[in-house]
Amino acid sequence: MRTEIRLSGRGGQGLITAGIILAEACGVYESKEVVQTQSYGPEARGGASRAEVVISDNQIRYPRAYNPDILVALSQEAFDRFSPQIKEDGLIFADTFYVETDKKEVISMPFSETARTEIGREVVTNILMLAALSATTRIVKLESLKKAVKHRVRSAFIEMNMKALDVGFKLGEEKWKERSS
Amino acid sequence: MRTEIRLSGRGGQGLITAGIILAEACGVYESKEVVQTQSYGPEARGGASRAEVVISDNQIRYPRAYNPDILVALSQEAFDRFSPQIKEDGLIFADTFYVETDKKEVISMPFSETARTEIGREVVTNILMLAALSATTRIVKLESLKKAVKHRVRSAFIEMNMKALDVGFKLGEEKWKERSS
Repeated sequence: MRTEIRLSGRGGQGLITAGIILAEACGVYESKEVVQTQSYGPEARGGASRAEVVISDNQIRYPRAYNPDILVALSQEAFDRFSPQIKEDGLIFADTFYVETDKKEVISMPFSETARTEIGREVVTNILMLAALSATTRIVKLESLKKAVKHRVRSAFIEMNMKALDVGFKLGEEKWKERSS
Repeated sequence: MRTEIRLSGRGGQGLITAGIILAEACGVYESKEVVQTQSYGPEARGGASRAEVVISDNQIRYPRAYNPDILVALSQEAFDRFSPQIKEDGLIFADTFYVETDKKEVISMPFSETARTEIGREVVTNILMLAALSATTRIVKLESLKKAVKHRVRSAFIEMNMKALDVGFKLGEEKWKERSS
């Protein structure tokens, strides 16, 4: 069992941090093999940002996510560029506010809006999004995300990020129920 | 031209942050292709930590650093484990305080001691070490490291980290002169 996840958006949206927290949650707090990768090249200089996480029950020989099972896009540019590369039957999550699309298979979720309205800070969008992924895809447990956030986030910001995790998980649960009904 | 770098030590020594800053410095502020990787698995649960950076003038097809050109070890465990994997003619940098070795080819440098005595905070050892690498190996320019630190470090800590970069660069220059004379 191997799952490839690509988190994408603009620089400054905290996607590298999100990738590291997701990788730590699965790799340190659950018994998975995990490789987490960032690439920098011409695309990074253009302002695009992406982090890749590969999670597996076995040793990971090939650490890149060329055909992700799960794509998160927090910007239009990232969505337009990466959504064609998703695996068949893969899941695409797009931020409702930043990504416009008429593709019905895309799961549009108000990550950034919920961060603004429920937490009062858009900066936690990345963490809120991880919890929504946890609720919908089950790739990682909420509890493991909480442990990784406590380990990785500065103490002054832990409470806000814990709240973002709870709110994001609830958002994911509701959205999933809606789709399944 | 491809260079593989492995930064290793214990959890909490900031090696993942160091890997990200090095990768951003080369990939965003210099015109290189860079891939930066963390792996989590049984070893991470044991407290070991490592980050790998591959820097190339061309597209990177294979992103792991299995035979590093450059190894930094900030703990004895990391040194004992990873130093046998270094490429022939590769460079090994070990922290004078945390790593004991009688191998003459190892470049022992007082990263953590210098951070404590010159900056007053051991927490900047990771950043100081990057600047020392810049002075000795020329894999990245000091200027690019400064830009990446400004981008990635919280504003309250930028001044301290800038000082760590200057001190680390000087340390690297002195050590290199000593070895060459």
